[in-house]
Amino acid sequence: MKDQILVVHGGGPTAVINASLYGVIQEAARHPEVAVYGAVGGVDGIFREAWIDLLQQPEEQLQRLPWTPASALGTSRTKLLAEDYQQIVSILKRNNIRYLLFNGGNGSMDTCGKIQELASAHGIQVLGIPKTIDNDIAVTDHCPGYGSAARYLATSVAEAAQDVQALPIHVSIIEAMGRNAGWIAAASALARRRAGMAPHLIYLPERPFHPEEFLEDVDRLHKELGGVVVVASEGLVNADGRPIVEPLLTKGRDVYFGDVGTHLAVLVMKELGIKARSEKPGILGRASIALQSAVDREEAIRVGEFAVQSLLEGKTGYMVGYRRVSDEPYSCETVLIPLAEVMLNERKMPDRYINARGNDVTDEFLSYCRPLIGEALPRFSELR
Amino acid sequence: MKDQILVVHGGGPTAVINASLYGVIQEAARHPEVAVYGAVGGVDGIFREAWIDLLQQPEEQLQRLPWTPASALGTSRTKLLAEDYQQIVSILKRNNIRYLLFNGGNGSMDTCGKIQELASAHGIQVLGIPKTIDNDIAVTDHCPGYGSAARYLATSVAEAAQDVQALPIHVSIIEAMGRNAGWIAAASALARRRAGMAPHLIYLPERPFHPEEFLEDVDRLHKELGGVVVVASEGLVNADGRPIVEPLLTKGRDVYFGDVGTHLAVLVMKELGIKARSEKPGILGRASIALQSAVDREEAIRVGEFAVQSLLEGKTGYMVGYRRVSDEPYSCETVLIPLAEVMLNERKMPDRYINARGNDVTDEFLSYCRPLIGEALPRFSELR
Repeated sequence: MKDQILVVHGGGPTAVINASLYGVIQEAARHPEVAVYGAVGGVDGIFREAWIDLLQQPEEQLQRLPWTPASALGTSRTKLLAEDYQQIVSILKRNNIRYLLFNGGNGSMDTCGKIQELASAHGIQVLGIPKTIDNDIAVTDHCPGYGSAARYLATSVAEAAQDVQALPIHVSIIEAMGRNAGWIAAASALARRRAGMAPHLIYLPERPFHPEEFLEDVDRLHKELGGVVVVASEGLVNADGRPIVEPLLTKGRDVYFGDVGTHLAVLVMKELGIKARSEKPGILGRASIALQSAVDREEAIRVGEFAVQSLLEGKTGYMVGYRRVSDEPYSCETVLIPLAEVMLNERKMPDRYINARGNDVTDEFLSYCRPLIGEALPRFSELR
Repeated sequence: MKDQILVVHGGGPTAVINASLYGVIQEAARHPEVAVYGAVGGVDGIFREAWIDLLQQPEEQLQRLPWTPASALGTSRTKLLAEDYQQIVSILKRNNIRYLLFNGGNGSMDTCGKIQELASAHGIQVLGIPKTIDNDIAVTDHCPGYGSAARYLATSVAEAAQDVQALPIHVSIIEAMGRNAGWIAAASALARRRAGMAPHLIYLPERPFHPEEFLEDVDRLHKELGGVVVVASEGLVNADGRPIVEPLLTKGRDVYFGDVGTHLAVLVMKELGIKARSEKPGILGRASIALQSAVDREEAIRVGEFAVQSLLEGKTGYMVGYRRVSDEPYSCETVLIPLAEVMLNERKMPDRYINARGNDVTDEFLSYCRPLIGEALPRFSELR
């Protein structure tokens, strides 16, 4: 009987989870002693013992994986209770699953660590594969999924900037995902071909939002340029740490937050009398294949391959991560990070990446982020 | 002295105005007796007598035009008064401008017609080049800019559908541009690879919106599928013809409408207790180059070329338009349409393109729209 690997997806989709899955399948296929299965619908698929044989899929479907957004296996946000971890280990044992690969964000790495603690006594090895557009997993240089979300936003902001500059009559507020960390919003700064270009202002949840400073900055920029482009993280907080928009509705565990972009656009119109509008690409920004980062995709594949190699070398209790060797030329190596170091340890933007006024990023951040979005953004025509 | 063409952009940007500009420049360059200028900042550029010599631009900048969104000349939404038209003609005459090309939407075609009525006495020829993502100009089969906005939305909805299906816990409302006409929202139906796939519901401003039917449909689909994708036009109206969201703020001529997407998401959460969210790509959807339709771009170039050819053949008082020859294989020819037939004659979706319940489009619409978005959308991996 072959040694069985089970792959599980957890948490919100990205543009490259399926690229990691592709890497796992490709590497497994190189080892005749290994079989690889995918849990259908995330951790719920383990409880239902619902999985599919990934080596038996049509080649055409496998080859499309790196260019398929979201999760081809399905994922979940199921909150696990203490007794669930033991049950998962029992299911794995009963089905002779020797290797568990858990591909997810902070919550999934926590789950992964808890399963591993129980599983090791049964000879079951567990590794985590990181995945989050939010880039908020600790220790690793960055997370698969972030580079693509960053490329999406930087490109979209560069294009919106052309629009706003061509008809310079309004303030456009673009809302970025990332409720607790501003990594995605920050990446929009890569849209600038020269200093002073859009985005003109960038607001991150790592800094309290001061409406009076915001209005002062917008007013000045509007007088100077006509059209102003602002990028705001969906998770902006006031000086007292509370969200700047009240939740519109709360239903059990689900909160519908008001839109930060709309809130700021209304503020600009009301207080400054300047035409404003908001754009909120939302989940489109984590699902775009046209704006996927090639670096992100290739790295995500590599992480999947490395995870399988590490399992077969007997490794357990780690998350695969990146260690940066150099910014330029860009080079990152794949490493193993003990799960205990990353479990639920949310990483926010460090101070050195944010400017003093809290309305922009620093050059150091740009050096960090630039290689992750892949090739340079397209240049646009400039007539004079 | 050369015969001088002046190109003017009017109204909101699209992904292919600059492609039409490229066509104008390329065609003009083929005629040594012609010079071509671009008004800077739309019709305001005429009043300021601010224009640039388009044959003197660096080749690199010209070659980028078809892949540059918005307007490389700048555009405006300036409302013209009766006396302005005469002044424009005086300025053209004083500067020996023989040919005027006005590239814009319904408002611009109206302007174009009014200038032409006064200009013909002075031997000045005037032609319109259509341009609008809204696809609401009369007589022409479609408008340059629409195919790209349609491709953007269809692709984005197909990708969001992957996301919602992978984590099927919520209703995602995607708001589409098009305040009075539903052409863009309708195009999202091209995201479906099979019947029954997302978008599950499509709402257009051509039909009154009935909240109770909407909630009934969402509830049924949620029970069946878990994740539901709804596309809603920003201009939805109630049975009495008023917008379903009250304007949040009115400042002079500027109205900040509340977001239809947010409104519907809140309705779903409040009335059905189902998690919901909204996405509103807004101006990103008219500026995307990665999702530009190749058919739209090539046709936009051809329209620019044809406009110059028509001017040199002595034509005046027309808008360049498309006449469809066949859906499959797709073929459209470029024709001249008298400006009087299109001036401010807004075209909405005809009844035959909308289903009986008013929550979807018909196959006839799909046959109309499919060729306009260019090559087929990418296929995604499906594992089983």
